[in-house]
Amino acid sequence: MQSKAVTLGVDIGGTNTKIGVIDDSGNVLAHSSFPTNAEQNFNEFINRFEFEVDVLRTKVNQQANLLSVGIGAPNANFYTGRMEYPVNFNWGEMVPIVDAIQNLLNVPTVITNDANAAAVGEMRFGAAQNMKNFVLITLGTGLGSGIVVDGKLVHGKHGLAGEMGHIAVKADGRKCNCGNRGCLETYASATGIKRTVFKFMADMNGTSPLRDITFHDMTAKMITEAALDGDGLASKAFIYTGEILGTKLADTVSYLNPEAIILSGGLTRAGDLLMKPTREYMEKYMFPVFRGKIQLMTSTLDGANTAVLGAGALAWDFIEQKENSQSMMLVH
Amino acid sequence: MQSKAVTLGVDIGGTNTKIGVIDDSGNVLAHSSFPTNAEQNFNEFINRFEFEVDVLRTKVNQQANLLSVGIGAPNANFYTGRMEYPVNFNWGEMVPIVDAIQNLLNVPTVITNDANAAAVGEMRFGAAQNMKNFVLITLGTGLGSGIVVDGKLVHGKHGLAGEMGHIAVKADGRKCNCGNRGCLETYASATGIKRTVFKFMADMNGTSPLRDITFHDMTAKMITEAALDGDGLASKAFIYTGEILGTKLADTVSYLNPEAIILSGGLTRAGDLLMKPTREYMEKYMFPVFRGKIQLMTSTLDGANTAVLGAGALAWDFIEQKENSQSMMLVH
Repeated sequence: MQSKAVTLGVDIGGTNTKIGVIDDSGNVLAHSSFPTNAEQNFNEFINRFEFEVDVLRTKVNQQANLLSVGIGAPNANFYTGRMEYPVNFNWGEMVPIVDAIQNLLNVPTVITNDANAAAVGEMRFGAAQNMKNFVLITLGTGLGSGIVVDGKLVHGKHGLAGEMGHIAVKADGRKCNCGNRGCLETYASATGIKRTVFKFMADMNGTSPLRDITFHDMTAKMITEAALDGDGLASKAFIYTGEILGTKLADTVSYLNPEAIILSGGLTRAGDLLMKPTREYMEKYMFPVFRGKIQLMTSTLDGANTAVLGAGALAWDFIEQKENSQSMMLVH
Repeated sequence: MQSKAVTLGVDIGGTNTKIGVIDDSGNVLAHSSFPTNAEQNFNEFINRFEFEVDVLRTKVNQQANLLSVGIGAPNANFYTGRMEYPVNFNWGEMVPIVDAIQNLLNVPTVITNDANAAAVGEMRFGAAQNMKNFVLITLGTGLGSGIVVDGKLVHGKHGLAGEMGHIAVKADGRKCNCGNRGCLETYASATGIKRTVFKFMADMNGTSPLRDITFHDMTAKMITEAALDGDGLASKAFIYTGEILGTKLADTVSYLNPEAIILSGGLTRAGDLLMKPTREYMEKYMFPVFRGKIQLMTSTLDGANTAVLGAGALAWDFIEQKENSQSMMLVH
């Protein structure tokens, strides 16, 4: 039996790491998840990673030919192959993760931040198939973004483009983990909407089931459920979030004139609660020439495997670009 | 004597049109300027254009071999070759200017908006030589921008990317010609700083020579001269302008991680009056990982010919890309 060409997608999160074997149609042939143990040292992570890859190999029934590894990780730099100053990781300031995994598995390995990987995943397997110009935004604990221009990820001069979580909403706004104030992700993210609920509980009266939940315990899912149950405070929090996000997405359109903006991540499970006000304010504040031309959509990838699919897609892109540049080098 | 390869740069403004013959080192071999007469019909413009090109031909001493024409124009669409719904022009809604000039001169012709052309000019002949990722901003009557990623202009899905003049500073801010409120160009432009001076004359007391000038008569040059003479109100207007512009440029860095942001246009003649506060607030509000890494600079091109050089550079780029894509097509 002929072996099937696959890539390995790796999504390194602060809590868990997910890995998956991805074929060229975006099927996840096998996957697993294990604790990242970011507080341990980097070698322990690599040892556990090696073990988990071996387990996956046995899970894949047909013989798989691993062509490439793609990694999505916090503070990842595409150019250097490192995680640089990753917050909450005890792996050192500069983590040479591409080198480590390339040495282990002996295949071309590429890294970028998780939102960039998600953008490549949408382009290859999801909502952005056939698109050349779009922006992918992940609304999770924070807000990440991947910008695609002419079919390619924008990395910028230092490999750090697409930090839309840190564009400014208000000069003296909410304190952000980055040290600045008023960053977009302090409003438009799972954490951001929770902060908004707490602001509204302070500003307004009216009853709400959310008043019985501590800041520590509250999740975006609870806020969504409250809004779906008709809770006014929770509904207003979604409108507030959508207004801020939509206003900023109008700016994004002025910068990049994308075909679509695609939202993904936990907060998008709220559906129209979030999408309706976001779309409304995006259209309202948009430079008029763009009105009605830019799609606002949600990811069409399987939520559980989005990150792994994105990383696997990144690996597929990487080897194809390698092949293209080699065939061009043969010509010149 | 061998003929010299040249391009023709064309800068179409609402008042005047400038044309220039540009060699591959960025020398302007001959140039002229004539009234656009935008209120007349398009055919009259083309007739006058033809006449002026003939005059230029006689001005160029050595025999010139015209390879290509590049045009910078308001509301220009790179993809369609048209000016689309140009405000203040009586040339129709869709002006097929590339077709018209190509038919006239029989060489490949390309168009984009003036700020995009200026960006290509900086990359080929000016401050952005050897840069692959930068943003060019023109501060004139309005604010235009050209975004370069991986050495190429970003046009976006509909050919209209780079409308940074219309990102929002304040939801309920100054009325903009585009119909929205609070657009960046209503603050950061020659017109914007004049509006700021008039706001400050209303808000503050204190004497200022600017109080003797009407809104209609006041220019950015007068404000610059007042500030250089120590006028407090004019100086504060530059700081206010720099704060708003710098804050937004910090966002630009988060989007694109450029190597540099280059400012050009009339308002930059104010030098440090504008650059110092802009740089200060850009660094202050920047996502910390970028601090100290992004250059803020002014154009190094000859101000009088910047627009024509940009359009000429666009034409040089256009024929080189044509040659590259043809040699690639021969391969495949």
